[in-house]
Amino acid sequence: DFQRAIKEVRPSFGAVEDQFDNYAQNGIINFGPTFDKLLKSSLTFVEQAKNSSRTPLVSVLLYGKPGSGKSSLASTIAKESNYPFVRIISPNDLIGYNEAAKGQKITKVFEDSYKSPLSCIVVDEIERLIEYVPIGARFSNLILQLLHILLKKTPPKGHKLLVFATTSNPEILKDMDLMDCFATTLMVPSITNRDEFKVVLKALGGLSSSEIDQAASYFSTPITIKQLIMVIEMARQEEGSLVNNIRLCLEDFQLRNL
Amino acid sequence: DFQRAIKEVRPSFGAVEDQFDNYAQNGIINFGPTFDKLLKSSLTFVEQAKNSSRTPLVSVLLYGKPGSGKSSLASTIAKESNYPFVRIISPNDLIGYNEAAKGQKITKVFEDSYKSPLSCIVVDEIERLIEYVPIGARFSNLILQLLHILLKKTPPKGHKLLVFATTSNPEILKDMDLMDCFATTLMVPSITNRDEFKVVLKALGGLSSSEIDQAASYFSTPITIKQLIMVIEMARQEEGSLVNNIRLCLEDFQLRNL
Amino acid sequence: DFQRAIKEVRPSFGAVEDQFDNYAQNGIINFGPTFDKLLKSSLTFVEQAKNSSRTPLVSVLLYGKPGSGKSSLASTIAKESNYPFVRIISPNDLIGYNEAAKGQKITKVFEDSYKSPLSCIVVDEIERLIEYVPIGARFSNLILQLLHILLKKTPPKGHKLLVFATTSNPEILKDMDLMDCFATTLMVPSITNRDEFKVVLKALGGLSSSEIDQAASYFSTPITIKQLIMVIEMARQEEGSLVNNIRLCLEDFQLRNL
Amino acid sequence: DFQRAIKEVRPSFGAVEDQFDNYAQNGIINFGPTFDKLLKSSLTFVEQAKNSSRTPLVSVLLYGKPGSGKSSLASTIAKESNYPFVRIISPNDLIGYNEAAKGQKITKVFEDSYKSPLSCIVVDEIERLIEYVPIGARFSNLILQLLHILLKKTPPKGHKLLVFATTSNPEILKDMDLMDCFATTLMVPSITNRDEFKVVLKALGGLSSSEIDQAASYFSTPITIKQLIMVIEMARQEEGSLVNNIRLCLEDFQLRNL
Amino acid sequence: DFQRAIKEVRPSFGAVEDQFDNYAQNGIINFGPTFDKLLKSSLTFVEQAKNSSRTPLVSVLLYGKPGSGKSSLASTIAKESNYPFVRIISPNDLIGYNEAAKGQKITKVFEDSYKSPLSCIVVDEIERLIEYVPIGARFSNLILQLLHILLKKTPPKGHKLLVFATTSNPEILKDMDLMDCFATTLMVPSITNRDEFKVVLKALGGLSSSEIDQAASYFSTPITIKQLIMVIEMARQEEGSLVNNIRLCLEDFQLRNL
Amino acid sequence: DFQRAIKEVRPSFGAVEDQFDNYAQNGIINFGPTFDKLLKSSLTFVEQAKNSSRTPLVSVLLYGKPGSGKSSLASTIAKESNYPFVRIISPNDLIGYNEAAKGQKITKVFEDSYKSPLSCIVVDEIERLIEYVPIGARFSNLILQLLHILLKKTPPKGHKLLVFATTSNPEILKDMDLMDCFATTLMVPSITNRDEFKVVLKALGGLSSSEIDQAASYFSTPITIKQLIMVIEMARQEEGSLVNNIRLCLEDFQLRNL
Ligand SMILES: Nc1ncnc2c1ncn2[C@@H]1O[C@H](COP(=O)(O)OP(=O)(O)OP(=O)(O)O)[C@@H](O)[C@H]1O
Ligand SMILES: Nc1ncnc2c1ncn2[C@@H]1O[C@H](COP(=O)(O)OP(=O)(O)OP(=O)(O)O)[C@@H](O)[C@H]1O
Ligand SMILES: Nc1ncnc2c1ncn2[C@@H]1O[C@H](COP(=O)(O)OP(=O)(O)OP(=O)(O)O)[C@@H](O)[C@H]1O
Ligand SMILES: Nc1ncnc2c1ncn2[C@@H]1O[C@H](COP(=O)(O)OP(=O)(O)OP(=O)(O)O)[C@@H](O)[C@H]1O
Ligand SMILES: Nc1ncnc2c1ncn2[C@@H]1O[C@H](COP(=O)(O)OP(=O)(O)OP(=O)(O)O)[C@@H](O)[C@H]1O
Ligand SMILES: Nc1ncnc2c1ncn2[C@@H]1O[C@H](COP(=O)(O)OP(=O)(O)OP(=O)(O)O)[C@@H](O)[C@H]1O
Ligand SMILES: [Mg+2]
Ligand SMILES: [Mg+2]
Ligand SMILES: [Mg+2]
Ligand SMILES: [Mg+2]
Ligand SMILES: [Mg+2]
Ligand SMILES: [Mg+2]
Repeated sequence: DFQRAIKEVRPSFGAVEDQFDNYAQNGIINFGPTFDKLLKSSLTFVEQAKNSSRTPLVSVLLYGKPGSGKSSLASTIAKESNYPFVRIISPNDLIGYNEAAKGQKITKVFEDSYKSPLSCIVVDEIERLIEYVPIGARFSNLILQLLHILLKKTPPKGHKLLVFATTSNPEILKDMDLMDCFATTLMVPSITNRDEFKVVLKALGGLSSSEIDQAASYFSTPITIKQLIMVIEMARQEEGSLVNNIRLCLEDFQLRNL
Repeated sequence: DFQRAIKEVRPSFGAVEDQFDNYAQNGIINFGPTFDKLLKSSLTFVEQAKNSSRTPLVSVLLYGKPGSGKSSLASTIAKESNYPFVRIISPNDLIGYNEAAKGQKITKVFEDSYKSPLSCIVVDEIERLIEYVPIGARFSNLILQLLHILLKKTPPKGHKLLVFATTSNPEILKDMDLMDCFATTLMVPSITNRDEFKVVLKALGGLSSSEIDQAASYFSTPITIKQLIMVIEMARQEEGSLVNNIRLCLEDFQLRNL
Repeated sequence: DFQRAIKEVRPSFGAVEDQFDNYAQNGIINFGPTFDKLLKSSLTFVEQAKNSSRTPLVSVLLYGKPGSGKSSLASTIAKESNYPFVRIISPNDLIGYNEAAKGQKITKVFEDSYKSPLSCIVVDEIERLIEYVPIGARFSNLILQLLHILLKKTPPKGHKLLVFATTSNPEILKDMDLMDCFATTLMVPSITNRDEFKVVLKALGGLSSSEIDQAASYFSTPITIKQLIMVIEMARQEEGSLVNNIRLCLEDFQLRNL
Repeated sequence: DFQRAIKEVRPSFGAVEDQFDNYAQNGIINFGPTFDKLLKSSLTFVEQAKNSSRTPLVSVLLYGKPGSGKSSLASTIAKESNYPFVRIISPNDLIGYNEAAKGQKITKVFEDSYKSPLSCIVVDEIERLIEYVPIGARFSNLILQLLHILLKKTPPKGHKLLVFATTSNPEILKDMDLMDCFATTLMVPSITNRDEFKVVLKALGGLSSSEIDQAASYFSTPITIKQLIMVIEMARQEEGSLVNNIRLCLEDFQLRNL
Repeated sequence: DFQRAIKEVRPSFGAVEDQFDNYAQNGIINFGPTFDKLLKSSLTFVEQAKNSSRTPLVSVLLYGKPGSGKSSLASTIAKESNYPFVRIISPNDLIGYNEAAKGQKITKVFEDSYKSPLSCIVVDEIERLIEYVPIGARFSNLILQLLHILLKKTPPKGHKLLVFATTSNPEILKDMDLMDCFATTLMVPSITNRDEFKVVLKALGGLSSSEIDQAASYFSTPITIKQLIMVIEMARQEEGSLVNNIRLCLEDFQLRNL
Repeated sequence: DFQRAIKEVRPSFGAVEDQFDNYAQNGIINFGPTFDKLLKSSLTFVEQAKNSSRTPLVSVLLYGKPGSGKSSLASTIAKESNYPFVRIISPNDLIGYNEAAKGQKITKVFEDSYKSPLSCIVVDEIERLIEYVPIGARFSNLILQLLHILLKKTPPKGHKLLVFATTSNPEILKDMDLMDCFATTLMVPSITNRDEFKVVLKALGGLSSSEIDQAASYFSTPITIKQLIMVIEMARQEEGSLVNNIRLCLEDFQLRNL
């Protein structure tokens, strides 16, 4: 299970750890078999990049709904990979830079990685890095072209690089020919059944077993981990029965998502 | 009712109060159950942001017709939240700044908020902040991308942030993928029936009960609070019976809105 | 009638009078009931802005065909309003300035107005101010967004502002969401019947009563006041009977407008 | 006839005459009634602008096929108008200037004209001044907006201005709302029948009466004056019978224009 | 025939001859009647520009498939025209200049030509000069407008100018209204029959009469002179029978062009 | 076979060899007749450019799926050509340069080549050099136009140039009229049958003959050499039977490519 899997990659870590502080602040819940398989696949790539000399570059794309936990997963795997060089490239850290400066920052991370024998880079929220908007399909072609090259450029002989990129919009990456840069893609799932729902409620705490069972009976449409946590916290603010409030909040959530 | 609700959040306030002077100059009329429910929901978020540590960021979108009272409501709730840090980001205060400078001003407000343990920011008229025009779907992608990041970026550990954003055009926010940034959305209603109409007329003053009844009988199509106040004031300028003038002005208003 | 109406607002005026010199150089002809009603409505807004404290900002849009007399009317009403602060913002005065400088000039007028207790601003030819072209729907978004804000921004407490904006193209203002900024809209009419036609011919002089009657019998399709004056003046250049020349020129005008 | 008409406006002229040297180098042929009527109308506007005080600005648009003689006509009328101030604004003289500089040059001509009591300006080839291309409908909006204002702006009191503008593409001027700026429009015709064809051949010289008759019998589709002159000159280069060469060249011309 | 025609215009030439060194390095093959007629027409224009004073400017457009020999023909005619001023304006010589600098270089050539009594300018590959791409129909409007003016501007009195422009894409020139600038257009043909095919093979050398006959029997679809030379040279590299290799290479060529 | 073919062109090489270090790090597998024919054709062009004086410039386009081995092939042929001047123009080496600087770098390589009697240039990944994106069909027109000229410009007399360009998107090159610049095009194939599959598996090592046979039996849809190597390396990381893992990874690959 996830607890075991995550423990295997937990060993100590060094200086750049701060960068990881803003991700997965409350840890990760391994809420079911789909999520577990995803975790295992991710860990396999950590092994491949380390071991295979035929594939010195492995670029993997994580995709899933907004709030499904892509950034949390990528950063956790990277942090726990035990690689000598790990970095996150995130739009959050690039606020206020112009296109050219952003391009330089991103390039710098890749060039630094080439100096380490074994590196892992998280390229978070590609659509935000390239400043994509569906309306008019605007985006920064400078950053897009840069990623196109960096995600495909073999590191110098004897060096190895593993890249986890994340996106909520794999279709537009395909439309931009960016998909060709990835060796493979992995889907980050939402909560899609009552069992997964229960695992999450249990992990969040504050509800008895029977309350969890009852709350789970109200579950009907898929919901991301982020939305589910929000629904539970909203329910906690309202007066009255928590389970009933969860029901009301879930209904509200479903109405808005129709 | 609203009077009570608003009193609960009224306690004194400090330095930045000036910024709020231009909003809701004549107070807010709680004109019926729909508006009342909106008020209550808004106040619940004030509580959640204060209390829940699982959701350190709560971003809420208020949408409604132009003149429905979005800015008035958001600013009133923020002002009365009693949070140590409250700010309004409004296009009115950003006239004459270029894209980059606007971006800096907006970022500054968010960064300042991260220094306070508990903050509330009103992001007023998103479509104006991003300089949106329907024709050709032009807008500032710089500001849009910035909001995309800021409305979703978790404040540093131990800090909490509540955001009320307003818009008259929720559809285009959806088209811009900006909807994904909000935990929830709340609709600010127009006046849609005679009872609400009467509450407003009474609050505005200058009409007897029977005049209000008669005037209300002319009400037929939904009207925003801003338009209704304008109609009444126009009617006051014309010579002759005020009630009759209201009828004529209402008819005029309906003709133009066909 | 108009003569009386206009006399009521005629009293002396001050320094900025020069700005008004280029407008309505030959005065305004009140050519019939439609035009008269328009005049009255305009004057009512002059009263409302002065008197109502609930509506410190009143923005009115005058629309009508090119040459229907929008600028002449707006400037005349403003000039005769007797308000302490009156200004015209006109594309004619902004030739050679770039977008940013234009924006500053426009903003300056509004900011100056906020210092006067009671102000009237004419915003002339919005489509020219925003440099609109139908082909490709090009325009200055900077100026458009600026107007969007200024036409809606409440003046500081205790200050009142009346705005008359003009346009020949109300549809595109609607397409640009700019209509929402106006409290109301007024149509400036063309000459649409023989009675109006006669009033104009009489006012222009140089024709006997029976000549006017005969000339009026040739009138068939609506014509703006500007076009009608042009037609009469062209007719005066040709040799032969003036009435016959008017007929020929009117026919020419109708042919071109098919 | 034209000879008489043109003589009436021929009197001496002054300093800016050089500007006119590049236009109508070989004079103008009055090739028939349609052309003659156009000449007369043009001269009427010269009179109206001089005489009428109700219409201090008269803007006229000359349109016609490329090579129909628009520039030749406009410059000839202007030169012979006997007005104290006459100028041509031509793309030929603006090569190498950027948008802003072009705008300044154009504005300067209009502002200079306002200092003269009576002025005539030729605005030649509007589509070239605004740098229009049909593909993508590209053009300089700066120059377009400038012309929009200048072609409509009344000169200061007591000053009068006559403008002749030319274009090969009146449709796009309409699409750009520029048509509204003109008091009227005049069509510059092509050669459309054998009589006109003969007048031109006679004026060009080098053919006997019977040769002209025979050549005219080959005429079938409309041709501009410029194309006709080119056809005759090409025919002169070939060996063999000139009349037969004219036939061959005319056929070639018709083939290409299918 | 061509040999005679070309000899008539061969006399010595002066300083700018270097510019012509890169064109038609291996001479021109007059491969049949169509090409011969083209040559004659071109030479006629050399005469007309020299002799006619009614047409001081003659602009001719040469169009044809890529590799059909447009540049070779234009440069050869210009070089052999015996005119005191001959120049080629070619994209090859403008690499690395920006739009404005290109515009200046082009203008300079025309202005220099105005100083000579008789000049010939080759404007090579218009679509490349204006940097045209079919996708999105992008191009330099600055250069396009410049050419629009220069190709139509009459040289100063007493000066004469002949222009040969070339393009592979006459349709887009039409779409850009650029066609109106040319007095006429001439098509540069491909090799379209076995006789022409044989003339070329004979001129290229290295094959016996009967080999040529056999090779010609494989000809089926039109091919440009450039492609044909390439096919023959490829065939020469392969081992085995040259005639058989020509057949294989021709088949390959036809397959790719389907 | 390929081993022999490649040996023929292997002789020693000089200074610029470093540039080639990042290409085809593990050598090239000649996996079957299609690939072999491609190799032979490529070598023929090496001969033609060396020998023919009629075709001093030979530009060849290699196209094929992403990861089919275009860059590996082009760089290997160039390196082994034994030409005195060989260079690779690759987007990988142009990261961080702006359009103009890129243009200069590219031009420099071509100009340097003109100084050598015999040169070979690899222009790698044209769509990346011109920064093409399918969405909105954006690209650098500056670089596109530059390539348009350079790929077609004959080197100075006595100099010869062979160009291998690569692309994954030959359709858009056609749409951009860039195809006309190439003398011919060659397709770089994927692995499309079991025999080719086996050749690759054997060359990669680590599997017995019977394992290879079994693994090959799972092959069903075409796969590029790059993808196949990735699939084998992934399979090596998983626990259990390698042949079975290959089957699972192949199935995964096919699913994603549906
Ligand atoms: N597996 C998980 N267990 C518990 N909490 C999780 C898990 N995954 C994510 N979260 C929480 O859900 C929230 C959203 O997660 P995260 O930001 O990683 O999602 P995301 O898919 O990257 O979203 P976005 O598309 O907005 O970038 C965070 O607060 C995170 O702590
Ligand atoms: N509930 C209310 N009771 C009384 N007056 C109100 C109320 N809400 C708004 N108003 C008044 O209506 C006017 C418009 O309100 P406000 O500017 O808040 O609307 P808005 O929805 O933000 O409009 P916009 O879409 O133009 O930004 C203001 O003058 C305000 O004072
Ligand atoms: N009511 C009127 N009586 C007499 N003359 C008028 C009247 N209205 C306008 N005019 C005259 O008609 C001409 C055009 O008027 P004006 O410029 O005001 O029209 P407009 O609608 O603003 O035109 P545009 O759409 O071009 O801006 C002016 O010369 C003006 O003096
Ligand atoms: N009526 C005329 N009689 C004789 N020659 C004329 C006449 N009109 C024009 N031309 C000659 O025809 C040629 C083209 O005329 P002009 O340049 O005036 O045409 P245009 O309509 O302005 O063309 P464009 O649309 O290209 O600007 C000139 O050489 C001019 O001398
Ligand atoms: N008539 C000819 N006889 C022999 N060789 C020719 C002939 N015309 C052209 N060539 C040769 O064919 C090649 C291409 O000719 P050229 O560059 O003139 O064609 P083009 O039509 O200008 O091509 P592009 O459209 O690419 O500019 C050159 O090598 C040239 O020497
Ligand atoms: N024939 C081959 N034999 C063995 N390995 C090869 C062969 N061709 C390519 N490779 C390997 O496959 C990988 C991809 O090859 P390469 O980069 O040349 O492909 P490409 O077609 O240029 O891809 P792209 O379209 O992404 O530029 C490289 O690791 C290379 O070493
Ligand atoms: Mg994320
Ligand atoms: Mg608001
Ligand atoms: Mg006006
Ligand atoms: Mg002209
Ligand atoms: Mg050429
Ligand atoms: Mg490659």
